[in-house]
Amino acid sequence: MITVPKGFRFAAARAGFKYKDRDDLGLILSDTPCACAGVFTRNRFKAAPVLQCREILAAGGPVRGVLVNAGQANACTGEEGLINCRVTLDLAGKAVGVEAVELLPASTGVIGPQLPMEKFRQALPDLVRGLDSGQPVQVAKAMMTTDKFPKLAWGRLRSETGEARILGMAKGAGMIAPDMATLLVFVVTDAEVEPGWWQTAVKRAADNSFNRITVDGDTSTNDTLLALAGGASGFCVDTAQEKDAFYEILEEVCQGLAYMVVEDAEGGTRVVRIQVGGAADDFEAELAARAVADSPLVKTAMFGRDPNWGRIVAAIGRSGADFDPDQVSLRIGGVSIFENGRPLPGDMDALLAPHMNRADITVDVILGSGSGASTVLASDLTHEYVSINADYRT
Amino acid sequence: MITVPKGFRFAAARAGFKYKDRDDLGLILSDTPCACAGVFTRNRFKAAPVLQCREILAAGGPVRGVLVNAGQANACTGEEGLINCRVTLDLAGKAVGVEAVELLPASTGVIGPQLPMEKFRQALPDLVRGLDSGQPVQVAKAMMTTDKFPKLAWGRLRSETGEARILGMAKGAGMIAPDMATLLVFVVTDAEVEPGWWQTAVKRAADNSFNRITVDGDTSTNDTLLALAGGASGFCVDTAQEKDAFYEILEEVCQGLAYMVVEDAEGGTRVVRIQVGGAADDFEAELAARAVADSPLVKTAMFGRDPNWGRIVAAIGRSGADFDPDQVSLRIGGVSIFENGRPLPGDMDALLAPHMNRADITVDVILGSGSGASTVLASDLTHEYVSINADYRT
Repeated sequence: MITVPKGFRFAAARAGFKYKDRDDLGLILSDTPCACAGVFTRNRFKAAPVLQCREILAAGGPVRGVLVNAGQANACTGEEGLINCRVTLDLAGKAVGVEAVELLPASTGVIGPQLPMEKFRQALPDLVRGLDSGQPVQVAKAMMTTDKFPKLAWGRLRSETGEARILGMAKGAGMIAPDMATLLVFVVTDAEVEPGWWQTAVKRAADNSFNRITVDGDTSTNDTLLALAGGASGFCVDTAQEKDAFYEILEEVCQGLAYMVVEDAEGGTRVVRIQVGGAADDFEAELAARAVADSPLVKTAMFGRDPNWGRIVAAIGRSGADFDPDQVSLRIGGVSIFENGRPLPGDMDALLAPHMNRADITVDVILGSGSGASTVLASDLTHEYVSINADYRT
Repeated sequence: MITVPKGFRFAAARAGFKYKDRDDLGLILSDTPCACAGVFTRNRFKAAPVLQCREILAAGGPVRGVLVNAGQANACTGEEGLINCRVTLDLAGKAVGVEAVELLPASTGVIGPQLPMEKFRQALPDLVRGLDSGQPVQVAKAMMTTDKFPKLAWGRLRSETGEARILGMAKGAGMIAPDMATLLVFVVTDAEVEPGWWQTAVKRAADNSFNRITVDGDTSTNDTLLALAGGASGFCVDTAQEKDAFYEILEEVCQGLAYMVVEDAEGGTRVVRIQVGGAADDFEAELAARAVADSPLVKTAMFGRDPNWGRIVAAIGRSGADFDPDQVSLRIGGVSIFENGRPLPGDMDALLAPHMNRADITVDVILGSGSGASTVLASDLTHEYVSINADYRT
């Protein structure tokens, strides 16, 4: 059962921006002013809602909600796109009784076209009415594009004085690469938090979850993570111990959502967990892990249920990571297949067959005897990925 | 008609390393000692023949030929692989009457297994007999793996005193990425060259051809370019003018082969030429060009004949290149589609449709007003790529 943080309402409606017969507009509204932390795409082309979010958060005022749409990314839309974005916030703010600058926008979909404003205007009354009875899952569904399922994760922190709840939702299945806040992710909590700590905690949780996944190595223009803390539970995250405990739950929620994004990768049939250890430092480990995670040859082999360690080794070799090839070892599904730079003898294909058929495969790479480590989650590369992305706009 | 440089003989034979009913062993033999230039993979895992080539070339002695096989890469095979490699050179050297250290080895195929030496021994007599009547195309075919056609390019330089011929051959269709000498490439010429200049010229030609292509961003453990100059024509490349003229032909031959590799990309249906200009410097231009060239989303759109400029723009935005988004312009097939950070109005899909159906598409990216430029050739990403690589070993 989803534990919904107190003081938040949710709604979705059909604007018909791109998709027919489904919701494509969502609203999250807090009854109380929230401390809000945000992490955004590092792509140089930033979508209008990303620019607008950054401006609002930089002003430092309280936040009351999030307005999200799917189907149009409102990216590369220039001044007109920015004005359209602000108008949607104006209209939505008036309709629910908050200031425009208290609402944060997010969009996902096709890059280029302007938002069809008339469709937005027509759908707004339905959206606002939906707040009375709306559920988080409706918003999670309304922001889906090529996603096959809505992604929600939640947790709670209990103490003698009360309980704080945290709920996250994410959309994303393609144009997904690490090294930034990835995709659209919204986290809400009824805890009361210190804003500076909250921003740090959210950034760190993003680094340990969304920035550790890859579907295709491509980075969206719209990636946005917003984390709203409304305080309606009366639970104040205050002491160092409370902060650690709350951070742990936040990270779990983010990692749960990040896993689901890879699980739902465009055309993906499995999650490949690449764990690199024994590196000189974490940075070297990450270089190696990402080279494996983004290698089309490794990803197609994973789709083909082929424990083709040669491709993993070749990817590590070109990763730029610093290591001695004669010290490298490799395990797939926990089974040693390559040690000290050489394949182990035996019918490895047969030994690995049961592991290769699982939906979640772990590849362990040991680069040497250092203490650097990094884990990246990757999807496989399949016919369906090609179909989805060759035909996306048509 | 292929112009074969004087003083070289060619042969191929069937060893059955992996493929049945086709040649998989090739030999190029020069009647005269050659100056030889080599460029090799930068992958940290270097195959035994790569290590052996580097050792031989470092010794600086003259070179008489190249021994190449397909089906087994002899990579990650340790000391045994290196010994096997040397034994093949010993046996082949004895059979044709040259020293083992005058022959350069090259292998391509599956990583891991040892070379089946008995198969090599059995095929060697046939290989040597083939030298009497063998043609270059037979060697080019014998080294194919997933290639659909053999790749040959040639040229000649004429002067009042004579004529020098140059002939190149390449194999490669997958595990292909820039930033190194890519694949197996052999160039032979009957010109006489100064060895130091030859190495510089070959390296530069590789940088301007094989290091400017990408199929899947993956870098092989076996990439090798060997360029043998035997001098049998009596034509000596001596003056600065002759060197420039000869370099130009060498580069043309290398670019011709590089184009064919992308044309023959695993599952590829077209060649995408990404030309980035207006960058602060060539390095920035290359960052942007490679991000576009390796983007799975751009590559699948190209397969889908979809002029999805949004994905091109998103790839540039995450490339790490330094530029002002409001100055970026884009042309596909020579048609302007995006100017100063914004899409142009009009039915661009209709306007671009004829260009999108061509086998060779040019994408021009103008980042700003700088003088930096770079061109990268890329393949598209297709169902067939996934099929080939999901099922390669089975």
